[in-house]
Amino acid sequence: MRMVDLIEKKRDGLVLTEPEIRWMIERYVAGEIPDYQMSAFLMAVYFRGMTEEEMVAFTAAMAESGARVDLSEVPGVKVDKHSTGGVGDTVTLVLVPLMGAAGYVVAKLSGRALGHTGGTIDKFESIPGVRTDLSPREIIDQAKRIGVVIAEHTQDVAPADKLLYELRDVTGTVPSLPLIVGSVLSKKIAGGADLIVLDVKCGDGAFMHTLDEARELAEALVRVGNKLGKRFSALVTAMDQPLGRMAGNALEVKQAIEVLRGRGPEDLREVTLALGTELLLLAGEERDEAAARERLERLLDGGAAWGKFVELVAAQGGDIRCVEDPGKLPRAREVVEVRAPRSGYVRRLSARAIGVAAGLLGAGREVKGQDVDPAAGVELLAKVGDAVEEGGPLARLHLGGRARPEEARRLVAEAFEIGDDPPERGKLVLARVR
Amino acid sequence: MRMVDLIEKKRDGLVLTEPEIRWMIERYVAGEIPDYQMSAFLMAVYFRGMTEEEMVAFTAAMAESGARVDLSEVPGVKVDKHSTGGVGDTVTLVLVPLMGAAGYVVAKLSGRALGHTGGTIDKFESIPGVRTDLSPREIIDQAKRIGVVIAEHTQDVAPADKLLYELRDVTGTVPSLPLIVGSVLSKKIAGGADLIVLDVKCGDGAFMHTLDEARELAEALVRVGNKLGKRFSALVTAMDQPLGRMAGNALEVKQAIEVLRGRGPEDLREVTLALGTELLLLAGEERDEAAARERLERLLDGGAAWGKFVELVAAQGGDIRCVEDPGKLPRAREVVEVRAPRSGYVRRLSARAIGVAAGLLGAGREVKGQDVDPAAGVELLAKVGDAVEEGGPLARLHLGGRARPEEARRLVAEAFEIGDDPPERGKLVLARVR
Repeated sequence: MRMVDLIEKKRDGLVLTEPEIRWMIERYVAGEIPDYQMSAFLMAVYFRGMTEEEMVAFTAAMAESGARVDLSEVPGVKVDKHSTGGVGDTVTLVLVPLMGAAGYVVAKLSGRALGHTGGTIDKFESIPGVRTDLSPREIIDQAKRIGVVIAEHTQDVAPADKLLYELRDVTGTVPSLPLIVGSVLSKKIAGGADLIVLDVKCGDGAFMHTLDEARELAEALVRVGNKLGKRFSALVTAMDQPLGRMAGNALEVKQAIEVLRGRGPEDLREVTLALGTELLLLAGEERDEAAARERLERLLDGGAAWGKFVELVAAQGGDIRCVEDPGKLPRAREVVEVRAPRSGYVRRLSARAIGVAAGLLGAGREVKGQDVDPAAGVELLAKVGDAVEEGGPLARLHLGGRARPEEARRLVAEAFEIGDDPPERGKLVLARVR
Repeated sequence: MRMVDLIEKKRDGLVLTEPEIRWMIERYVAGEIPDYQMSAFLMAVYFRGMTEEEMVAFTAAMAESGARVDLSEVPGVKVDKHSTGGVGDTVTLVLVPLMGAAGYVVAKLSGRALGHTGGTIDKFESIPGVRTDLSPREIIDQAKRIGVVIAEHTQDVAPADKLLYELRDVTGTVPSLPLIVGSVLSKKIAGGADLIVLDVKCGDGAFMHTLDEARELAEALVRVGNKLGKRFSALVTAMDQPLGRMAGNALEVKQAIEVLRGRGPEDLREVTLALGTELLLLAGEERDEAAARERLERLLDGGAAWGKFVELVAAQGGDIRCVEDPGKLPRAREVVEVRAPRSGYVRRLSARAIGVAAGLLGAGREVKGQDVDPAAGVELLAKVGDAVEEGGPLARLHLGGRARPEEARRLVAEAFEIGDDPPERGKLVLARVR
């Protein structure tokens, strides 16, 4: 087999066989296929796509390219979630303890911030003392003990995905449905959970800008995932404006804590409950959606989820005084307000712009390996539908050490579109794929 | 400027600016843009194409990526030709001395065999003693002295083309019109000639399989070339069956000598005269095609072209006894006949299969840098339209040192399609683009 022949086959719109795809991924991970051939292949995939059978083979080969997470010695039903990435998306920090409180095992492997989207690991680590570089043994022991874990993705799980993602990032081949499917699912297939809910974000702050694109991705993820021996469900949720009112690390932890205490922004609570409901239905333990939702609401409002979160923070070395009193979380040296240029209603609020601004303030990374500032970020004082007055506050910029406040301020100001009339209220959950 | 942005621009069907294209080629030749980004770009070009303005900028940037051939101190009108590559295509060995005999300067830079097509340098070097690795000084001096030179392409002319061609070869991005245009023209623009005729081959032995594709390529080459300050003309010529009756190195030299002595295969003579006529018309020195052609026929049939060829061989160190008596050229250790499986007429004769077979016999290369066998190749005893008898000879295989005669014999036998009726006579010159 020669890689150039596989490139030409894909270029010409033909279908690759399972052995061809497996050979390609194995040889690539072994360093025997050079990046310059793989990137030409990826661009051909961008234009030609993949059949469902090709996606299944591609995902399986990536999942088998390294170690598998083995939770077999942990009793109980293991569940997991994955978001395709958004701004203010703190769902994981709420959903993991919520599902733990419901009696499920959640050993969540997460990533760090890259581009305009945040990363759960950076957020969780903004709690002083929290450790996320857990060994497989530590993950298993903690899952056995308290049912919930949030650890950093290790490179030995689905290493093909790491290599391919880095290559895609610099070769214009990120926004390709089959490549996204392979990337998202390979880590889940190699992961330890049996039931997985996917949150496909849709809107200007997400990869998928239109509902059609997002629904197509959600359907492909669920179809391909279910063929690989695990059970998947997906929601398409709105990412036109940020979720909640915070974009940053400690800022988002603060907000997650609010939701875990039965308060907090309605949209963040809503998306969390919707995803949790999907998991309960996948598990088949509730008779219908309403019952599943009610159970989760009780766990949130009754304090069980909050209790599980405190256990989680403590288990990973975090200072629980900082979560019991979020005022003790890292705070910015300076806070600057962005004011409304006119009175009216917020008609749009660009999630992407807010995400980029939070990054410029220090919450994100410009290059890999850079430290993030736990205190930096954007706090939104108005969201879509809110009435604002000329000169009144729209947002607060929490300045980090290497902040570029002028650029961030301009971006945040431009992110708000203010008009005379209130906009129609948009839906949060746009589609459901089971 | 970032390469990933240019890749995405092309991927999305947008038009790159001249400074963007220039930046990309300069940085690539400087080794600052990695192959894995360039190959993704090339694949995006495969799918999206280039506008004429992009092709002009791309070709110019490649032409300016290295040294230019400077023939300014050589008096006279400098002409050149280029073929997109075929089987049995010995035209250069006839056309160079013919144009020299007509009083033009031809300092032809050529390449070696690769794939199923031969290379002029390998053919010319099959004449014992011939040297083709001439320095710029030697090329100029010889052009001044006798008007004609055949030298090997040096890597310092259009180095971008060499780098890109090697990358395209292993990434499935060879058959792309704008990339072929840039490759062909950049070397001509950086070359020393003012008037250039292009021979775009069409058929199963060429890159372009259909007349529409070949005509489109010829038109792009002439339009883009003329915008870059030189005068181009192009013919589309048939490459369904090999040109002439030989595919090999010394074998093709022998055949070129026949044509130079006023004999030889009609089709090889015809294509040579047609290309030469185009050059005379480009030069504007003949009132019409008929007059131009007549002049070239006189030079061929009267021995002037032959005399110039002997001068050329002698000037480059060749043993002229071998061209005066081609029986002294390298000869195969063994010759094997391929016989007709039935009586009838040759309806088709695959140029590609004959080219591959000649390579297997030792006339070509399987990997770069390999030596070719000067004596090896295929001699055709029947061509399309010829009547053959069952058991009668179709071809002779001239076996080289590392020949794989069984594979070659099968290929040659299968290359012939024999039917009951003679086929319609096809045209040799399929289109003319000025």
